[in-house]
Amino acid sequence: MKAFPTLFVNEDIVRFNIRQMAEKAKACSVEFRPHFKTHQSHAIGHHFRDFGVKGITVSSLKMADYFIKDDWDDITIAFPVNVLAADYYDVLASKCDLKTLVISSDVVKRLDKGMSSTMGLYIEVDPDYGRSGVPVSQLDLISQLLATIEASDNFYPAGFYCHAGHTYKTRSKEGIEQIAIETLKKLKVLKQAFPDLPICFGDTPSCSVLNDFDPANQISPGNFVFYDWMQVQIGSCSPNEIAVYMECPIIEKFQDRNQVLIHGGAVHFSKDSVKIGDALSFGEPMLKHLSEETYVASLSQEHGIVQCSPEVFSKLKVGEILKVFPIHSCLTADLMREYHTEDGKILDHMNGV
Amino acid sequence: MKAFPTLFVNEDIVRFNIRQMAEKAKACSVEFRPHFKTHQSHAIGHHFRDFGVKGITVSSLKMADYFIKDDWDDITIAFPVNVLAADYYDVLASKCDLKTLVISSDVVKRLDKGMSSTMGLYIEVDPDYGRSGVPVSQLDLISQLLATIEASDNFYPAGFYCHAGHTYKTRSKEGIEQIAIETLKKLKVLKQAFPDLPICFGDTPSCSVLNDFDPANQISPGNFVFYDWMQVQIGSCSPNEIAVYMECPIIEKFQDRNQVLIHGGAVHFSKDSVKIGDALSFGEPMLKHLSEETYVASLSQEHGIVQCSPEVFSKLKVGEILKVFPIHSCLTADLMREYHTEDGKILDHMNGV
Repeated sequence: MKAFPTLFVNEDIVRFNIRQMAEKAKACSVEFRPHFKTHQSHAIGHHFRDFGVKGITVSSLKMADYFIKDDWDDITIAFPVNVLAADYYDVLASKCDLKTLVISSDVVKRLDKGMSSTMGLYIEVDPDYGRSGVPVSQLDLISQLLATIEASDNFYPAGFYCHAGHTYKTRSKEGIEQIAIETLKKLKVLKQAFPDLPICFGDTPSCSVLNDFDPANQISPGNFVFYDWMQVQIGSCSPNEIAVYMECPIIEKFQDRNQVLIHGGAVHFSKDSVKIGDALSFGEPMLKHLSEETYVASLSQEHGIVQCSPEVFSKLKVGEILKVFPIHSCLTADLMREYHTEDGKILDHMNGV
Repeated sequence: MKAFPTLFVNEDIVRFNIRQMAEKAKACSVEFRPHFKTHQSHAIGHHFRDFGVKGITVSSLKMADYFIKDDWDDITIAFPVNVLAADYYDVLASKCDLKTLVISSDVVKRLDKGMSSTMGLYIEVDPDYGRSGVPVSQLDLISQLLATIEASDNFYPAGFYCHAGHTYKTRSKEGIEQIAIETLKKLKVLKQAFPDLPICFGDTPSCSVLNDFDPANQISPGNFVFYDWMQVQIGSCSPNEIAVYMECPIIEKFQDRNQVLIHGGAVHFSKDSVKIGDALSFGEPMLKHLSEETYVASLSQEHGIVQCSPEVFSKLKVGEILKVFPIHSCLTADLMREYHTEDGKILDHMNGV
C-alpha cells in the first residue's frame, strides 16, 4: 500500500486494448500508427511492437526524440510545424523517417530554408472541428500547399492528417458514429481530388466505434491504450477497458456532508472534468457498483474531496486507499511521471527521466 | 527567443510582492509564514529570507523535504495528517521544527504510535468553506482534539490553521473583504475560547486586501508571490503585480475566425480557467491594452487556441512569441518545472530536480 498518490497501470488491459485496435486496423486494411502522447513510455511502447506496430505518432519534438532513443524509426509529430524549431526538426529527421504537419505554404518555405534533412509533410485538414488545419473543403488551398511541398528542397508529401476532435463533445456511441461518418464523407471528396495521397485519421472515440475507415489509409488513435472516465462518458469504452487508476490515501471523513478527503489533487489528476448531472466530476472512484452519487467533487493543489453515497461513505476508512479512475488519462500520466504495476514494477514516463 | 513554451519569472515583481506582504504582516503584528507551494523553488525561497522570513508553509511531505535540504528549519505542512506516512513525518520532524494539521483525535492517536520525534499539530478549522477542518463553531470537538494532542507522547499544540478558500469565488475586492471579515469574526469566538493558541490564517485574496488580521497571529498566503490572471479576476491584484508569464511560439493564424494557434497546451498551462462573459479563458495574452476579446479560448494537450480581436489578430505573426499570463500560476509552475529570467538564468523548481 503506497502512502502517496500513485498511478497504477494494468498491462493486461493495455495489451487487450492494443490487440483490439491492431486487429481492427488489420481487418479494415488501414495502417495502425498509434499516438504515443497518452502513455509517453518506452515500456508501454514495447507492447505495441508485439502487435506489429512500426510507425508511431507523437505530439512534440521532445517526444519524438524520446522515442527515437528507444529505436522507433518512423515517427509522425502530429502538431503543425513550429518555424522557430527548424534546427531540432533537422536533427531528428537525420535520425529517423520523420513526418510532421503543415497548414500553410509560408511555413513550408521558411522551414525549407532552415533544414537539410529529408522530412515528410502531412497536410493537416480540418473536418470543421475548428482547432487546426486547412478546411477540408478548400481544395484550391490544399493544391497550392501540395505544390509548395513538392517544389521544396527537403520535403515530400506524406499525405493528409485529420483529427475529428469534436467527437469528444458527444455522449453516445451513436453520436460518435454520426460525427465520424460525416468526417469520412468529407474525406472522400479529398480522396477523389488527391487519390495517390494517404489519409491518416484518428481520434479515440471514432477509432473505437467505427468498423470501416474508408477512405482513410492510416489510423492514429492514442488515448485508447488506457482509456479513462471521459471516454466512458463519451461512449468509446466500458469501465473495464480502463487500464490506469490512481491509488489515493483516505485522509479524513466528514460525516455531516458524506464527503471524504483524499490525498490526490490537481497536481496529480489535472483539472480536467466531466459533467455528472449539474455537478463536475474530477475522478471516478472504482467501486463494485459505480454510482452517480459518488465522484471526486473538487480538487485543489493536493486535496481531493470525494462526494459519496451514504452507503459508500460508511464503508470508506481513514488510512485506507481509494482507487480512482482519472477523467483524462493523458494528463494524469503526464503529471504522475511514472507507472506502477500490481506486481511491483515501475514503468517509465518521458517526464520522469 | 525560445522555440518552445517557456515559463518566465520577473524577480523584481517577486520581490515587490514579497516586500508588500512582509511589510503588511509587520504593520499588523502577525508572523509571516508564507506558503511555498506556489513557487516550489529554492531560488525563489531565497528572496523571502531577505525579508526576514524564518517559518514557511508547504503542502506535502515531499515539499517539506525539498526545503529542509535548503536549510529551512521551521516548516508547516498545511495538509491534514496522512496516517500511512508516519515514518516520513518522523524522519522530517527529526530534522527540523515540523508542524502539520489535524482534524480528528483518532488520527492523532494512530500517528502518535508510529513516531518518536516531536511535532507541532495545528488543529485545522473550517470557516464554513467545506473543504477540510473541524467546523470552527464546534468548540467541544476542538477541546477534545486539543486534549488528545496534549495527552500524546510526541505532539504539542501549534495552534489553529484556517484557510478561507471561498474568497476564490468572489470577483471584487469588496467581496473578498466581506468573506474575510466574516471569517475573522468566527475566529474571534475561537480566540476567546482558546486565547493562548496562535491562529494561522491565510489565503492570497484575504491577505492581499485586508489590513487588519485580528485575531490571527500568523498569515500564510502563497500565490501572492507570483499572482496570476485568476487573482486579477478575483480582485486580489492588478495585472502589473503578476510576476510570471509563459512565452509561447505562434504556430499558425486562422484568418476566418480571428484565431491563432500557439504551442502551449494543457501540459504547460494546466486546465484551470476563468469565465470571461459566457466563455472560458485558459490564459490571458499580455497586450498593451488588455481586452476581453482576446483570450486563450481552448487548450488540448499541446495546442492552445487564442481568440483575438481583429486588431490584435492583425498584429500577431507566425514564428513570433506570444506572452501569456497563466490563469493559475501554482499549477503552471508545477507543470513547467523551471523558471527562466529575462537575463538568462534558470531557477529551480522541485519537480525539475
